[in-house]
Amino acid sequence: MVNVAILGYGVVGSGVAEVIRKNSESIAQRAGTEIRVKWILDIRDFPDSPDKDVLTKNADDVFNDKEVDIVVETIGGATIAAQFTRRALEAGKSVVTSNKELVASQGPELLQLASEKGVSYLFEASVGGGIPIIRPLNQCLAANEIKGITGILNGTTNYIFTQMKKEGKSFEAALKEAQQNGYAEQNPTADVEGHDTCRKLAILSSIAYNEYVDSSNIYTEGITKVTTADMKYAEAMNGVIKLIAISRKLGDKIFARVSPAIISKEHPLSNVEDVFNAIVVKGDAIGDAMFYGRGAGKLPTASAVVADIIDIAKHPDYGTKNVWVRNNENNVIAIEESPAKFLVRVATDKAADARSDIKAIFGEVEFIDLGSKVQGVEVAFLTPVLMEKEIKEKLVGLKAMNSVMDIANNIRIEEE
Amino acid sequence: MVNVAILGYGVVGSGVAEVIRKNSESIAQRAGTEIRVKWILDIRDFPDSPDKDVLTKNADDVFNDKEVDIVVETIGGATIAAQFTRRALEAGKSVVTSNKELVASQGPELLQLASEKGVSYLFEASVGGGIPIIRPLNQCLAANEIKGITGILNGTTNYIFTQMKKEGKSFEAALKEAQQNGYAEQNPTADVEGHDTCRKLAILSSIAYNEYVDSSNIYTEGITKVTTADMKYAEAMNGVIKLIAISRKLGDKIFARVSPAIISKEHPLSNVEDVFNAIVVKGDAIGDAMFYGRGAGKLPTASAVVADIIDIAKHPDYGTKNVWVRNNENNVIAIEESPAKFLVRVATDKAADARSDIKAIFGEVEFIDLGSKVQGVEVAFLTPVLMEKEIKEKLVGLKAMNSVMDIANNIRIEEE
Repeated sequence: MVNVAILGYGVVGSGVAEVIRKNSESIAQRAGTEIRVKWILDIRDFPDSPDKDVLTKNADDVFNDKEVDIVVETIGGATIAAQFTRRALEAGKSVVTSNKELVASQGPELLQLASEKGVSYLFEASVGGGIPIIRPLNQCLAANEIKGITGILNGTTNYIFTQMKKEGKSFEAALKEAQQNGYAEQNPTADVEGHDTCRKLAILSSIAYNEYVDSSNIYTEGITKVTTADMKYAEAMNGVIKLIAISRKLGDKIFARVSPAIISKEHPLSNVEDVFNAIVVKGDAIGDAMFYGRGAGKLPTASAVVADIIDIAKHPDYGTKNVWVRNNENNVIAIEESPAKFLVRVATDKAADARSDIKAIFGEVEFIDLGSKVQGVEVAFLTPVLMEKEIKEKLVGLKAMNSVMDIANNIRIEEE
Repeated sequence: MVNVAILGYGVVGSGVAEVIRKNSESIAQRAGTEIRVKWILDIRDFPDSPDKDVLTKNADDVFNDKEVDIVVETIGGATIAAQFTRRALEAGKSVVTSNKELVASQGPELLQLASEKGVSYLFEASVGGGIPIIRPLNQCLAANEIKGITGILNGTTNYIFTQMKKEGKSFEAALKEAQQNGYAEQNPTADVEGHDTCRKLAILSSIAYNEYVDSSNIYTEGITKVTTADMKYAEAMNGVIKLIAISRKLGDKIFARVSPAIISKEHPLSNVEDVFNAIVVKGDAIGDAMFYGRGAGKLPTASAVVADIIDIAKHPDYGTKNVWVRNNENNVIAIEESPAKFLVRVATDKAADARSDIKAIFGEVEFIDLGSKVQGVEVAFLTPVLMEKEIKEKLVGLKAMNSVMDIANNIRIEEE
């Protein structure tokens, strides 16, 4: 028998209790022992809950109970959750979480503490909801040197983009609909500005490259500036716009970036629609492997938490060897020093002159023509692959030209 | 230090040695111990091999060596491979294999033997090449009741279909090209008749439903009768034809089938092209999750073998609890008693009469019209969902009609 305490009876926490209750038989078979939820800690009252017999408001019930082997932290945030996680690990209890903010910010210290105490700190549910991705990276692809990760890691923004593309809705209208459907929070900043994606990319990259990648070092650009006009250009290029999280191991440095990008319709990520997530992992032996599924939601996320619980029930030392070392130096390449290729849309009332000026500054480029599909007059082109700082400098020069009224937008093109 | 012996120095066996050599450092870090290839058994000479110092032709070198912890069986087939696997397990050595034929046919007995001896018999590489799928089913999705599996499990046939669709080649021409490119064997029967896919489906289903599914009970139809004309019908239905392996848990029985089928272009498997494989797993908590990657090839397959080796190095009892019980009764639902929906192509020189006869027999059906794209005169329609035996009976009746010259082809439609 393995006893579990759940901290926080919200969407994920209650889902964990539900999955353990519902599939208790097959879970016991796979774990080799019964898994029991002994405590659920929450300050709120749930008089009608099927779990009401194990609910408590007193944290001491959990932490002073020597029978509790595993603590599930589904509180969220990096303050109380961090205190409780430390308290559990200090007490020699393994901790399982879906809390990406905490893992991304304090992963090195919490993993170190877990390792010292001979227990596990696992977080499969922190990335990709129910999609198995942390464990495949740690275990299934263990024979590979991981070269890179490319992913769609946020369901909210992917839903918004899908609505914009399929229904022609504006960003604002699509966001509002996502909020009405419960796919976006009332304060959508963490999703639409890319912060959520960035934390998940930092976690995946830390595992893939065996060194801690601090999310605060990753260049992050949200989706608020992307318009349906941009999507029409992507379509004309036989591509789609997605919020792409990408990282690569380059020598002893790491390239990592979160931004909207145009990917070809041939790319395996191009068909990932609505609230689905997918992650492409590039290994030196396996080549490209992709993992796809629901990136959020009560039961998918809960099933990932319970998979971690089962692993610990089978092998309590399951995660003790995974430790991330926090570097004193920034191991992420600055965005300015990263190569990129852009689609640039130039607003102009002198198209021929603008084309000449673009060629004078960027050399021979490919122009993308939408014909009459875009209102007003504009010229769009693809830059060559250059360092981002070079492209930015050239765009400053271009904007100063008489032929150019404004740079309407520029969007990266991801070809790998 | 964990010592490995590789049986069979062919494509996969030599790949395993290569991956262990190339990534020894990161593998040792992940396994927590050094992994060494101590012996490679093969009756052939490899004087120029980088592994020549550990090559032997004497099986006793392997089996009498108490230092050998793990035996990698990459011989293939179910005779010598079975003998050597038994001998290794009897000697208390864990066995890792890519041999789907052996796992599918003798899995219950070999897993039982491994369990009795307290060692592991692992076979991640037997399905989907390098794609992590066995371990996710066993471990990552352990919190789920698995409801079903749908997959493209054979790269050869998928490559042939991709060539037929994209280049308009005939089956024969596409097969020849696949052989020239090394994607198909000179005797392509196991691939094109679906036997390879069937074995893999049997393995996945046995894991998913926690009971042995015998591949000889699974209805299996190959791809040799599919034509480019069929593909044009699929296109007109906004679909594609794939060799689909499908199984579902239905009450206490299992539905399982391998056959060409039309799937919608919205289906996540529809974009799986060339030699890639993908598997959709339906879990009660996670919903649909998909795993995608190279289904074959030296290094991808080797990386899956090495992942199994690492798991055993970390936890020698890793696989001891996985045992399949061989049922005396057939637990697979007969194909005749399975529901299905077909696209039926009827050759006729009396199209209007044929349509009337079709409606008289099948009721109101949807007709699919290709216009002038198909030579000759034919009428194509979609059956309702009926038991396969009912559809067959109705087709016999239809074929007897004066209006009908022949049933040109019929292909299942998979809507889930």
